[in-house]
Amino acid sequence: MTGPARIARIEGVPYRLPLTSALAWGAHSALSAAEHVLVRVTLDDGTVGVAEAPPRPTIYGETPGSVVAILAHLAPALIGLPIADAAALSRVRNSVTNNHTARGALDMALWDARARATGQTLFDTLLGPTSRVRVSFILGIDTPAGMLAEAERVVAAGVRCLKVKVGRDHTRDLGVIRDLRATFGDSVQLYADSNETLTPELAPTALDAMREAGLTYVEEPLPVRNLRARMELQARHLLPIVADDSCFTPADLTRELDFDTFDILNVKTARNGFTDGLAMLKAATAAGKRGMVGSQASTGLGTVHAALLSTQAEVTEPCELSFVLKLQDDLLNQPIPFEDGWLDVASLRHHSVDPAKLRHYQLT
Amino acid sequence: MTGPARIARIEGVPYRLPLTSALAWGAHSALSAAEHVLVRVTLDDGTVGVAEAPPRPTIYGETPGSVVAILAHLAPALIGLPIADAAALSRVRNSVTNNHTARGALDMALWDARARATGQTLFDTLLGPTSRVRVSFILGIDTPAGMLAEAERVVAAGVRCLKVKVGRDHTRDLGVIRDLRATFGDSVQLYADSNETLTPELAPTALDAMREAGLTYVEEPLPVRNLRARMELQARHLLPIVADDSCFTPADLTRELDFDTFDILNVKTARNGFTDGLAMLKAATAAGKRGMVGSQASTGLGTVHAALLSTQAEVTEPCELSFVLKLQDDLLNQPIPFEDGWLDVASLRHHSVDPAKLRHYQLT
Repeated sequence: MTGPARIARIEGVPYRLPLTSALAWGAHSALSAAEHVLVRVTLDDGTVGVAEAPPRPTIYGETPGSVVAILAHLAPALIGLPIADAAALSRVRNSVTNNHTARGALDMALWDARARATGQTLFDTLLGPTSRVRVSFILGIDTPAGMLAEAERVVAAGVRCLKVKVGRDHTRDLGVIRDLRATFGDSVQLYADSNETLTPELAPTALDAMREAGLTYVEEPLPVRNLRARMELQARHLLPIVADDSCFTPADLTRELDFDTFDILNVKTARNGFTDGLAMLKAATAAGKRGMVGSQASTGLGTVHAALLSTQAEVTEPCELSFVLKLQDDLLNQPIPFEDGWLDVASLRHHSVDPAKLRHYQLT
Repeated sequence: MTGPARIARIEGVPYRLPLTSALAWGAHSALSAAEHVLVRVTLDDGTVGVAEAPPRPTIYGETPGSVVAILAHLAPALIGLPIADAAALSRVRNSVTNNHTARGALDMALWDARARATGQTLFDTLLGPTSRVRVSFILGIDTPAGMLAEAERVVAAGVRCLKVKVGRDHTRDLGVIRDLRATFGDSVQLYADSNETLTPELAPTALDAMREAGLTYVEEPLPVRNLRARMELQARHLLPIVADDSCFTPADLTRELDFDTFDILNVKTARNGFTDGLAMLKAATAAGKRGMVGSQASTGLGTVHAALLSTQAEVTEPCELSFVLKLQDDLLNQPIPFEDGWLDVASLRHHSVDPAKLRHYQLT
């Protein structure tokens, strides 16, 4: 066959990987297993690109069923397009709104297929200048003893930065943070994720206390809907603020930069893919902001993709690349190794989905 | 059976109703048929409530498949709850984000079932003080001759207010508006829907020209992402601004009221249901804003529900209740009549879904 490779097939394959323990990030939000979807793009020359979509009904309104449905909706417009025509593919991907993880995974699977169609991999086309990156672990809400035990487990596994989910009981949260500090000293960086739980009235005191407790930053202290209060809190510069829920999309980032609500952008490949993820990092850097790459509880495949974005020059902070430590098993053919707080991203070049594991864990 | 009626079943039934002609509202957004989903709530006493979900991939990211998927996701938490416990039902409905039309329809179907469980209908529990309402028709983008012909058809059918979709060719749009004015004189109210197509630089001149052409207001002149420019344009009070895409959710409305970006709130039952729709109208009125009820190209059932919200005291403007004029057929047992610009909402009390028509048009 002559001519450039074209898209022949788009599929979503739901699968389920069991966790070591549940991850909670709110009163009504918890995961006991990773029920994700493998997005697979097949070209007419047989090339296959894959990526992981982690549907989150409470955050993005997606389910495994909706991921499969939106891929089926987009497939007719994608099939037949040349894989090299990234602009045309993005126009189709952006012809629908929301569906964040489905569209993020579709973008990454297209990037994967595009690299492979020319005999390369994403490690050739996307690996940036920082090939070793610092990693953080998201410590879910649990009893203080449970949080400390989980922290000890992941620090033993090579993590040196913990993002601590905090909630409405500020005094209890500060107690957990003091315990973590007492256990690990200065060898472990700690920061907080408030998940929009503070109020404009209480936030300044809470951020002062977090800073005094040695936390390096706080993610989304205030409700996203309260843009004015977020702008006013940021203007006080009490503690660097990480933007996550306030920056789901490039359009969100435009607004947040305009109103200057944060210091550090948390870009998630799971919801933004590579195309928008790279553009958002560049836009944030151009505005003088710092960058990190976050996780939507990604399993191994999503972690490899997030790790590749983490190697870009715009990424300045530890990245959420260690959720795999909560998996009982993974789809990848080898584990992702962490050492003294670092992940050597270049060493992941031969990590790939094991077909036998996919057959074992897929749900169809 | 004793005790209050409880939810026994939640279903989505996709159906397809043909249009008289395609409706376009952008370069790549058009409908040639209404492919919607009937959301059906069945209680354990046999009571059934229904509503219409019109999935819009380009606006809300939904498809018929995603509507069915999110209903299946929510059903386990809904089944067994008392239909009278509106707060508990709303907590489940709001446990997921996005899925605007699925959740809007679910809310309306629950309201319908709640009324029927006590031997009433929505006309007993929701009909407001304004039982006759003015109606508007959305004139899609077409050739000038096509737009004029469509306008003449719907004015002959009893409409006296036209919302004219305008786009990037401002001069051509003003020509169409002059033709409409020349044809109908002052007997037909005209306003514009810019669908975010103007720029901050051109908007003041464009709004001046619209006002001088006799348009009564303009919907979403600027890109939603440009909150600051929208706030600045509104502060100049060149022409009343209608908020639509900027107010998809109650959280959006909170932000828009805080930054004072509009004069008239367009609430759509299709995306907000009754619970949030009523709350949003009250919040807008409390802030001194006017209210209208919009259509997401609803067929008869959705129109009856939108019409009920239109009868509330907070609704001050003509409402988008005449999309049924573009349908070749409908699921309802009788047509919705318009007379000299008005719809007598109280006269719709016995309009209901015809089971034979549903069987004919359903897709499963």
